[in-house]
Amino acid sequence: MKTTIIGLGLIGGSMALDLRKAGVATILTGIDSSETNGSKAVELRLVDSIEDEGKALSTADLVIVAIPVNASRAFLPAILDQVKKDAVVIDTGSTKNLICKAVERHPKREQLVAAHPLAGTENSGPTAAFEGLFNGKTNIICEQDKSSDHALRVAKHVFNTLGMNTIFMEADEHDKHVAYVSHLSHVSSFLLGQTVLDIEKDKKNIFDLAGSGFASTVRLAKSSPDMWAPIFEQNSEYLSQALAEYIMHLQKFHYHLMKRDTKELHNIMVKANEIRRILDSEAPKREPIAVKS
Amino acid sequence: MKTTIIGLGLIGGSMALDLRKAGVATILTGIDSSETNGSKAVELRLVDSIEDEGKALSTADLVIVAIPVNASRAFLPAILDQVKKDAVVIDTGSTKNLICKAVERHPKREQLVAAHPLAGTENSGPTAAFEGLFNGKTNIICEQDKSSDHALRVAKHVFNTLGMNTIFMEADEHDKHVAYVSHLSHVSSFLLGQTVLDIEKDKKNIFDLAGSGFASTVRLAKSSPDMWAPIFEQNSEYLSQALAEYIMHLQKFHYHLMKRDTKELHNIMVKANEIRRILDSEAPKREPIAVKS
Repeated sequence: MKTTIIGLGLIGGSMALDLRKAGVATILTGIDSSETNGSKAVELRLVDSIEDEGKALSTADLVIVAIPVNASRAFLPAILDQVKKDAVVIDTGSTKNLICKAVERHPKREQLVAAHPLAGTENSGPTAAFEGLFNGKTNIICEQDKSSDHALRVAKHVFNTLGMNTIFMEADEHDKHVAYVSHLSHVSSFLLGQTVLDIEKDKKNIFDLAGSGFASTVRLAKSSPDMWAPIFEQNSEYLSQALAEYIMHLQKFHYHLMKRDTKELHNIMVKANEIRRILDSEAPKREPIAVKS
Repeated sequence: MKTTIIGLGLIGGSMALDLRKAGVATILTGIDSSETNGSKAVELRLVDSIEDEGKALSTADLVIVAIPVNASRAFLPAILDQVKKDAVVIDTGSTKNLICKAVERHPKREQLVAAHPLAGTENSGPTAAFEGLFNGKTNIICEQDKSSDHALRVAKHVFNTLGMNTIFMEADEHDKHVAYVSHLSHVSSFLLGQTVLDIEKDKKNIFDLAGSGFASTVRLAKSSPDMWAPIFEQNSEYLSQALAEYIMHLQKFHYHLMKRDTKELHNIMVKANEIRRILDSEAPKREPIAVKS
């Protein structure tokens, strides 16, 4: 398939690598708003060439959209306008509600698969891309009923090739869940980094004391603000709920800490330990993606 | 050296493995309040045998104390009482202020080195011990002036053998710094786990949506409450400050999120990104531990 990747960063670039390796993408062209990223992506052989938008979109069999969610929301209608009739467009953004709304009445809506492959690192840009990023991770497809059988079949082939387990969810349910298990983690980490930077004027001490625990908790604070600010904006309602609950839990802990109620602190930690059982459990076996027949 | 390890968990057990391998510990005996842990440690060959406290302490050249900080504070005076005149005792607890105070007037104070090797995982108990846990990590020694040259020399040998870089700090300074870069991370992670558990009644969704970002941020929520409750209690004053500042930062973020002030959210994240520069920087070269001559 002739494949066009819009957004040659960690997600788009890593998909390009895996899809080329598997022979799914035979010709790979790229579109990126940054000329530097475009050249870098060609130099790294993520894509064969950079083409202008009109040509890249009108000739592609498969278009993968891996740009910040505000850009997805703004440009998806125009992307659908330009693709040919049997082309398939896969959006990979981390929010789905507003993105799906932006194209709900588009005449080519059924050519779009609204997906969210749950994979990433704290790094961004074409140099961050690597083979195998998606392997063994979960992919979410939203509003599957609004995609055609053909589009879902192609998307299934793509995500199976990447080694992902796909599950299905409504867009609103998706946004709520990721507010808690992904977006809140990022906020927690950004502000932990900020708090430690604020207090530790002598930067050397941060390094000295940064045991692996701190490094792991604060890793996400290295993430790209250009990518995350629009995600937080689009998911502000659910993220706001999640953040309010998190702050409430921290305040309760703070209260017991100040009261020196060590027994209650212990109880809270025992409950939080339950996360171990869940995270360490075996990955549930999944059915291959069901396609409407 | 005949070495006695008090507390055969992750820290004590991992030290035993490295010290035996390097030939520093020739005979290894263990003391543990749990009989099960004691037998397991012998079975895993962390130590050669479990001895009763009186014998294990009175015959050891080196005693390593790796027990919860409330136990260290309570038992260190009695441990010093029982060791022979040229024996060296190394405490490894994660708080130092109250532990140092507990022995400040002890006649054998100079036989003690108050240390904090900054290493660990979210796992605990003898089965969690492994070779190389400490390699390349930072060790802190507090109140070095209160330890004898001999005790510091032995401690230097031990921590160099483990591959650690040692730095020196006052006990109070230590407790303040670790409140921010270690203890706060743990609180942040415990409560993040709790928040997600609270909302996600359908546990399968947590697993499905747990991208590597969430798993990394919440990893410390798996840590042992028996170990952490006493740490939080002993460092409640500094941790309380750190937690108040963290909550304040989260509340400011929440405010801007609700106001849909995406530009300000972006600014906050750009500032937090500075943590990358610090964490990714080269480890500074350190002088070998200076010993009073």
